[in-house]
Amino acid sequence: MIQRDRLVNDFEAMSQFTASGEGINRLAFTDADWAGRQYIIDRMVDAGLTVETDGFGNVIGYKVGKNPDLPVVMVGSHTDSVPNGGNYDGVVGVLSAIESVRSMNDDGFEHDHTIAVVSFMCEESGRFGDSTLGSKAMRGELTVQDLHRLRDKQGTSLYEVLKGRNLNPDEIEQVEYKRPVKSFTEIHIEQGKVLEHEQKRIGIVTGIAAPERFYVTIRGNADHSGATPMNLRHDALCGASKIILGIEEIAAMQEEPPVVGTVGIVEVTPGAMNVIPGVVKLGVDIRSISEVARNSVVTLIKEFIDVTAEKRGLSYTIEPVAQDHPVAMHPAMIREIEEVVTSLGVEYMALPSGAGHDAMHWADDVPTGMIFIPCLGGISHNPAEFAEMDDIVTGAEVLDKVLRKLSLEDTKLV
Amino acid sequence: MIQRDRLVNDFEAMSQFTASGEGINRLAFTDADWAGRQYIIDRMVDAGLTVETDGFGNVIGYKVGKNPDLPVVMVGSHTDSVPNGGNYDGVVGVLSAIESVRSMNDDGFEHDHTIAVVSFMCEESGRFGDSTLGSKAMRGELTVQDLHRLRDKQGTSLYEVLKGRNLNPDEIEQVEYKRPVKSFTEIHIEQGKVLEHEQKRIGIVTGIAAPERFYVTIRGNADHSGATPMNLRHDALCGASKIILGIEEIAAMQEEPPVVGTVGIVEVTPGAMNVIPGVVKLGVDIRSISEVARNSVVTLIKEFIDVTAEKRGLSYTIEPVAQDHPVAMHPAMIREIEEVVTSLGVEYMALPSGAGHDAMHWADDVPTGMIFIPCLGGISHNPAEFAEMDDIVTGAEVLDKVLRKLSLEDTKLV
Repeated sequence: MIQRDRLVNDFEAMSQFTASGEGINRLAFTDADWAGRQYIIDRMVDAGLTVETDGFGNVIGYKVGKNPDLPVVMVGSHTDSVPNGGNYDGVVGVLSAIESVRSMNDDGFEHDHTIAVVSFMCEESGRFGDSTLGSKAMRGELTVQDLHRLRDKQGTSLYEVLKGRNLNPDEIEQVEYKRPVKSFTEIHIEQGKVLEHEQKRIGIVTGIAAPERFYVTIRGNADHSGATPMNLRHDALCGASKIILGIEEIAAMQEEPPVVGTVGIVEVTPGAMNVIPGVVKLGVDIRSISEVARNSVVTLIKEFIDVTAEKRGLSYTIEPVAQDHPVAMHPAMIREIEEVVTSLGVEYMALPSGAGHDAMHWADDVPTGMIFIPCLGGISHNPAEFAEMDDIVTGAEVLDKVLRKLSLEDTKLV
Repeated sequence: MIQRDRLVNDFEAMSQFTASGEGINRLAFTDADWAGRQYIIDRMVDAGLTVETDGFGNVIGYKVGKNPDLPVVMVGSHTDSVPNGGNYDGVVGVLSAIESVRSMNDDGFEHDHTIAVVSFMCEESGRFGDSTLGSKAMRGELTVQDLHRLRDKQGTSLYEVLKGRNLNPDEIEQVEYKRPVKSFTEIHIEQGKVLEHEQKRIGIVTGIAAPERFYVTIRGNADHSGATPMNLRHDALCGASKIILGIEEIAAMQEEPPVVGTVGIVEVTPGAMNVIPGVVKLGVDIRSISEVARNSVVTLIKEFIDVTAEKRGLSYTIEPVAQDHPVAMHPAMIREIEEVVTSLGVEYMALPSGAGHDAMHWADDVPTGMIFIPCLGGISHNPAEFAEMDDIVTGAEVLDKVLRKLSLEDTKLV
C-alpha cells in the first residue's frame, strides 16, 4: 500500500535541495540538483532497486522481474527545476514511482517484467535553453556537437558541465537505451487548471500537444497621433489587435480535438504616446495534440491575417519559428489506466497535455501513458506551485496499480 | 512680392546647419542650432529689421510701424529640430516671415503697427524632453527651477546650457515679453496628411488640439499557453486588444469636432511564447481641439474598458499622465486669413492642428491664427520630411498679405 508518511518525508527532504532564491532552484547539474539526485539514488537503493547511471547522469533503478529477458516496464520523470520553480513539477513522478516499488515490496508483489524507475536529468530548459535532454540522450537523439552547442547563461557548455560531474560527454551516443521496453508511464502535476475546474482527482492524458510557432510582423504608417484623423490611419496596432482577437476566436471554435492559440509577445514600433504604431510584431503559439486540427486552425488564422491586413491597408510578413509534432498516448495504455482509476472509484477525466514531458520521447516507439494530478490554480514553474498530498497519494495509488498490471506478462498492450 | 529664389537660397543655407547623422540634427542650443540662429539674425538684419535677443536666446526682429506705440503684430516659429528631423518643421515659419518683410520692403509697404518677427528657441522636446520652451519663457511661464530640472541625455541642465551660450538663466523671469501684442500668426507645415489627401494648398487652423493621456494596466492570469484551454483563460492581451479596437471606434464616431484616439505604447508581461499575457499596459492618447468632445470620448472609452474587463474577468487600473487644454484660434484671425486665401484664389480648408506649436502659448491672451501648408505624406520629425517649394511660396504669399492687413490700424480683430 502507498504510505502517505513516506511520501511526505520524501517531498520534505527534496524541498531542502535548492540554491538560494525564492521557491525551488534546482537547475540541472548544479550542486542542489546533484544532491537531490543522490537522495533519489539512496531511496532507490533503500527500496531494493539495482541502480545504474549512464553517461548523461540519468538514474535507472531496476526491480528485477521473474523473467528478466522480457522487455522492461519503465516509469519515470525528473527532479530538476526551473529558476524559482516548485517542488512538485517532475518530483511527483519520481517519488511516486519509488513509493510504488516500496508498496510492491511491502506486499511481496511478484511480477514477470522487470520494472525500471528512471530519474531523467535536465528535463527543464531553464539552464541550457532546451528541454528533456536526459530523455533525448536515452533515445539516442543527443550528439557531442549538441553538448558543445548548449550553454548556460554563464556561457559554460553542457559538455564542460558533464565533464565537471565526471560523466562521459564524449560517448554520449552510448547513453542510448538499448533494452527492449514494454511500456513507459509518467505521472505529473497537470500544470494547468482543467482538473481543478472540473473537480477531478485524476487526468488520463490523451496526447501531448506540440506547438506551431511563428512571428507575424504587421506594417502600417507611423504617423503623428495628433495630426492624423482616424480615417487616414493605417495603424499597425489596431490591425494587430484584430488579429489577436481573431486567433482567440478561431482557436476556441475548434473544439474536438481542442486547439489553443496564444499571442504571448507583442513588440510595438516606435512605441511612443504621440506616434501611431507603424510596425507591430506578434509571437504566436498554436497547440494541439492533433496535427490535423492544429494545421486547420493555423490555416484559418493565416487567412484571417491576410483579410485583416488587406481591409486596413496594412502589409505583413510571417516568419516560422517551430513546427513540432504532437504525440498521442497509446490507446492500450489509456485503457489500462482507465481500468485502474475506475476500479479505485476516483473521479477522473481524459485531457490533453499542453506542456511537453519526458514521456513524449518514448511515445513513438513504446506504448506510453501519462497520468495527471491537479495542482493549485494550475500554477507551475513558480514558487507558488502546489499539489495536495491527498492528490499525490491518490496518484501514487493509481501508478502503483498500473505498474503492477503492466509488469504481468498477461497484460498485453494491443 | 514673395521671391521664390530668395526662399530657395534660405532653405538651402539652413539645411547646411546640422550635426552629423541622417536628416537634420539641429537640437536646441547645439552648435548647429546656434549657427542656424546666426543665419536667421543675419537675414533679419539684411531685411532691415532691428534685432533684439532675450535672456533665453529668442530672436525678435522689428520692422517699426508708423505708430510705434501701437501693439505689435507678431509672427514667428522656430528653427531647431528633433534628432534626425527635417528642414521644414518650424523653418518654413521663420523664413516665410522674413521673406514677407523683404516683400514689404520691395514694395515700400507702409504700415501702422510694428511687425515683430520671432525665432523662438527650443520649440522641440527632442533635447530637454519639454517643448515650446522659448514661447513659454516669453510668456513668463519658465522659472529658474525649471531650467535646473530640465536636462538633456548627457545630464546637462538647460541652466548650464544657457550659461554656456552667454545667456541669462538667472533672470529668466525678465524674458517675459511685456510689449502689447495685437496678433500672433504662425505658418507651419501640417505634419499630417489631411491637406494632401484633400488636395488643398492651404489649411486654416481652427484650433490646436491637446492630449489627454493615461495608462491602462489590464490584469489577467499568466497561465501556461499549452495547458490552459481557451475557455479557462483570462488573457490580459485579448482584453487589451478589445480595448484598443474600442478606442479606435469610439474616437472615429465623434466626428464634429473630431477627436483622435491612439494607443502608441503596449507592454506585455511576461512576454513569452509559452505564457498567456498576465499584465498588459497601454499608453493612450486622446486629442481634440474641443475639450468637451475629448471628455465625452474619454468617458465612453473608460466605460468601454470597464465593460470589457468585467466581461472577461480581468481587472484594471487607470493612471492619468496629462490633461492639457486645447486652444481655439481667434475667429477674427481665421476670418482675416480666409479673406486673404480667397482673394488669392487658393484651394483651402479649415482643419485642427493635432500637434502643438509656439502659437498655442499666445492664444489665451492674443488673437492668434495659424496657417498650414501640405507636407509630403504627412511625414515630419523624420529625414523624409518634405514640402514643395510651390506650396512654401504660396504659404509665404498668404502670410505676407495677412501680415500687411494686420499691420494696418483699420484692421480690427473683433
